[in-house]
Amino acid sequence: MKSICVFCGSSFGARDIYADAARDTGRVIAENGYRLVYGGAKVGLMGTVADAALAAGGEVVGVLPKALQNKEIGHEGLDELHLVGSMHERKALMADLSDSFIALPGGAGTLEEIFEVWTWGQLGYHQKPCGFLNIEGYYDHLIAFLDHQTGEQFTKKVMRDMVQIADTPEALIDLFKGYEPPSTPKWIKKDET
Amino acid sequence: MKSICVFCGSSFGARDIYADAARDTGRVIAENGYRLVYGGAKVGLMGTVADAALAAGGEVVGVLPKALQNKEIGHEGLDELHLVGSMHERKALMADLSDSFIALPGGAGTLEEIFEVWTWGQLGYHQKPCGFLNIEGYYDHLIAFLDHQTGEQFTKKVMRDMVQIADTPEALIDLFKGYEPPSTPKWIKKDET
Ligand SMILES: [Mg+2]
Repeated sequence: MKSICVFCGSSFGARDIYADAARDTGRVIAENGYRLVYGGAKVGLMGTVADAALAAGGEVVGVLPKALQNKEIGHEGLDELHLVGSMHERKALMADLSDSFIALPGGAGTLEEIFEVWTWGQLGYHQKPCGFLNIEGYYDHLIAFLDHQTGEQFTKKVMRDMVQIADTPEALIDLFKGYEPPSTPKWIKKDET
Repeated sequence: MKSICVFCGSSFGARDIYADAARDTGRVIAENGYRLVYGGAKVGLMGTVADAALAAGGEVVGVLPKALQNKEIGHEGLDELHLVGSMHERKALMADLSDSFIALPGGAGTLEEIFEVWTWGQLGYHQKPCGFLNIEGYYDHLIAFLDHQTGEQFTKKVMRDMVQIADTPEALIDLFKGYEPPSTPKWIKKDET
């Protein structure tokens, strides 16, 4: 594992614990020698995680759609900032550049990013771990839903088990290091995502 | 509103209530004169909703990636079956062909589909309603998470209120008919999804 992708909010949320967790995550990624891949913005938790990784001497790569660059906010201090044509190209390039995927607290965009990566894993496009950094139980209800989904047989247990959960970045990265992907059929290739 | 898109599982789940709900949904869509747009497969709840709409005399359009056609299973009795090059093209075309979006029970793919459509709504790409058909509380934990996400200020209340929830297809369609989209900035266009 060389690169870790972080999906997270472009806002800060209601409480300082979220920015604290984003700061920890960026720092831990950098201090352990991993490259951070993220959405390329300088705002909200996205900016915080990038700034923390840079401050700890880490390499940081951003992937930002051109359409959002003006409004959102490209981060100007990154090692690389890829400007892409669409939201889809962003997610596909982030997946390509990364060996694992962490969802920090975030909104709709964070959900669709982590669920798309998980879906791609189920379709055999990659064998990379993904998971939730569950800060102060932020994702508790969502995790309960994933378990219900599995109990009701809309998700196979082996696919549910792809999703790692921890409440510190250190613990989540440890889970990633021990991750054994299920053997999945290769239903889609890169240009079919 | 002319077309309703349904996202749902390609399996049947653990209980008959899910197929019953898929059957009701297809029938209600057709009987009320709406066109059904869906993922184009003949298996699981996807096949059930399409078959029920067809049996009730409705028009049904499927959108299936070529990569999945062999394995997954194109439905051969549809009015139109669009074969597309990628999972992304599938979602973009389904969004384009539809005026509203329903998530029936499903797995990872259903989650990422409905959350992507919701994200696109927040980015101003469309002003179409989306929502969950909450069969026997299937989505209760997920809805609790959306409310927590909103309370923690990672999702604005006006964006949370875009997501409609009902436990019958009739009630959900009524909510769609009364839907007033928030005024959102147009951050992305079609080729930027
Ligand atoms: Mg998606």
